Amino acid sequence: MSQLPNWKDKALFTPGPLSTSLSVKQAMMRDLGSRDMEFIKTVRSIREKLVELGEGNEHYTTVLLPGSGTFGVEAVISSVIPGDGKLLIIINGAYGQRMMKIANAHKINVVPLVFPENMQPDVSEVEKTLQADPEIKAVAVVHCETTTGIINPIEDYGKAAKKNNCIYFVDAMSSFGAYRINLEECGIDYLVSSANKCIEGVPGFSFVIARRSSIEKIKGMARTLSLDLFAQWEGLETDGQFRFTPPTHVLLAFNQALSELDLEGGVSARGERYKQNYNITLSSMEKMGFKAYLDRNVQGYIITSFNYPDHPKFVFKEFYEKLSEKGHVIYPGKLSHADCFRIGHVGRLGSADVKSLMAAISETLTEMGVINL
Amino acid sequence: MSQLPNWKDKALFTPGPLSTSLSVKQAMMRDLGSRDMEFIKTVRSIREKLVELGEGNEHYTTVLLPGSGTFGVEAVISSVIPGDGKLLIIINGAYGQRMMKIANAHKINVVPLVFPENMQPDVSEVEKTLQADPEIKAVAVVHCETTTGIINPIEDYGKAAKKNNCIYFVDAMSSFGAYRINLEECGIDYLVSSANKCIEGVPGFSFVIARRSSIEKIKGMARTLSLDLFAQWEGLETDGQFRFTPPTHVLLAFNQALSELDLEGGVSARGERYKQNYNITLSSMEKMGFKAYLDRNVQGYIITSFNYPDHPKFVFKEFYEKLSEKGHVIYPGKLSHADCFRIGHVGRLGSADVKSLMAAISETLTEMGVINL
Repeated sequence: MSQLPNWKDKALFTPGPLSTSLSVKQAMMRDLGSRDMEFIKTVRSIREKLVELGEGNEHYTTVLLPGSGTFGVEAVISSVIPGDGKLLIIINGAYGQRMMKIANAHKINVVPLVFPENMQPDVSEVEKTLQADPEIKAVAVVHCETTTGIINPIEDYGKAAKKNNCIYFVDAMSSFGAYRINLEECGIDYLVSSANKCIEGVPGFSFVIARRSSIEKIKGMARTLSLDLFAQWEGLETDGQFRFTPPTHVLLAFNQALSELDLEGGVSARGERYKQNYNITLSSMEKMGFKAYLDRNVQGYIITSFNYPDHPKFVFKEFYEKLSEKGHVIYPGKLSHADCFRIGHVGRLGSADVKSLMAAISETLTEMGVINL
Repeated sequence: MSQLPNWKDKALFTPGPLSTSLSVKQAMMRDLGSRDMEFIKTVRSIREKLVELGEGNEHYTTVLLPGSGTFGVEAVISSVIPGDGKLLIIINGAYGQRMMKIANAHKINVVPLVFPENMQPDVSEVEKTLQADPEIKAVAVVHCETTTGIINPIEDYGKAAKKNNCIYFVDAMSSFGAYRINLEECGIDYLVSSANKCIEGVPGFSFVIARRSSIEKIKGMARTLSLDLFAQWEGLETDGQFRFTPPTHVLLAFNQALSELDLEGGVSARGERYKQNYNITLSSMEKMGFKAYLDRNVQGYIITSFNYPDHPKFVFKEFYEKLSEKGHVIYPGKLSHADCFRIGHVGRLGSADVKSLMAAISETLTEMGVINL
């Protein structure tokens, strides 16, 4: 199926970068100086809005950091854990594993608690580990592991962390903005997410929502210059400016994206739209004979992993490319032990887009001769 | 002088973010998947074009890294210098000092060679230092110190570095694209610049042009995950993809900016335009009674520092704000020992814009009562 070049951008059923609204992209059509008062005000408004989205109060503050989401995760781990500190990482997927790689790069003492990718890590295991090792000073976990699409119970781990006087760090990269997260109730000291996830901005920076009483104590603890969380925060607090050149256009897009999240009705309304995308996807896919990798009770509405169908004519690369030619981008799998592909439910996509993808999948299966799944 | 909101974007006479063309910004009006073939091809083309701009050949390769320019500098310093390596940093401004801060953050053994901010560092001093200390394995220098606007003779330091078997690293953040740099002739092993400088893209990533034979040897030497130069390069070489989410929109803008640099006639034509901006600025400013901080023979055409005039009614903050209200953004100084402000000559600005700024400065001085300078 041949098309004119740049016929239309493909719909991105991925974990990000995502499809964004026209108006979010249009917000980038300006060149603002990074020390300009208008830009500084925009940055301040973004920082305040993010705390509000986490249902936070004056005890919380936001740090914006250029780079991809992983930069934000590394900024927290390498700035918050003291030299002699021990970090417990709850792992059930690739992003938990990535946290461990970061800690290893900085020679931070890590206790990895590894669980199967299709299960929510057991809270009692976490508690037991914390009680057995009082040297552990911090706990880190991923909220939505896009490896599978599983949602981890961050409030439960938070209670365990707080009971044991640990700093609690949540990687909410792909959930923040679509799942209700009350920072205080979850006991969160540091939460990281990025511009191009459920807020529906474009990629280019990550943000850290931090408990003031915690971030105030980490001065001089960073192991890098660029990812020094305290110094970045101090700069923003002092004169509202970034220490180093901010991605001004991406920040303008994000500011617009935050307004549009408000217009949609906030986190719960956005979550509902994504949930609807997920429900249509799951029921249509199951009707076609696909099976989701996860049990429904642990599956989130951000992204779903589907097992490769057990059919001799199903070849993922061909399936992917045929869908892409039809204008739909899905996502390969990332599991360590099972053949899966993924379909995202987030970004500026609604039920019409999802139904269009489902029709394209059905058509593609017929073209490939994958019948009677 | 009151204006309607967003009347028109101000002209940015700064060291970046800069004024960019409409078509560069328009290139961001698309959402491409980061694993999409069209995006991967764009990334490949950008990487090749950058080597060409450095007059490089197959011995050179490019690494793109999300974040601001400083992230690229930190990626090189923290990935290239071995644990027992000693780094000589030639310093005559804030960006040389910043390199030292980066090396200190990573506990890298540094030999700082500090020179006055208004002088090009003496090559014979560099040679003497290298000969006296054979443990020095790498030399780093800033090409255009935007602290003052001075241009340092990078080819001379490169010869000294190579004669002493050192890795040679040039921070060409604000010069690359506007000054001819022949990577091989300058003996450069690593050069860093960023998207929003003389290529006239928008901010959001930095790039490192590296000598293949050098970058091939640094596997496993990085001190971080996000800024691991080898791993980032390996990812781009293997499947053309970023390891972590790239700023897709910013990269599309950069690709367009590279085409427009070509259209303008390449590095020399762009350099000529900037030089003209500089010449008009300098002669008009001198006519008004301002004095440039640097001697003309070491001054580049990227940015110029002017001394605060010795007049009781000159208050920089007022001067800056009045110019900003008139639609022109200039830049504060960054010198350690002298009161200066800066005017940039780069970005999508031509002689008409510069003349408009000069008229606004003249008007502002009259308004402030700063007469007979």
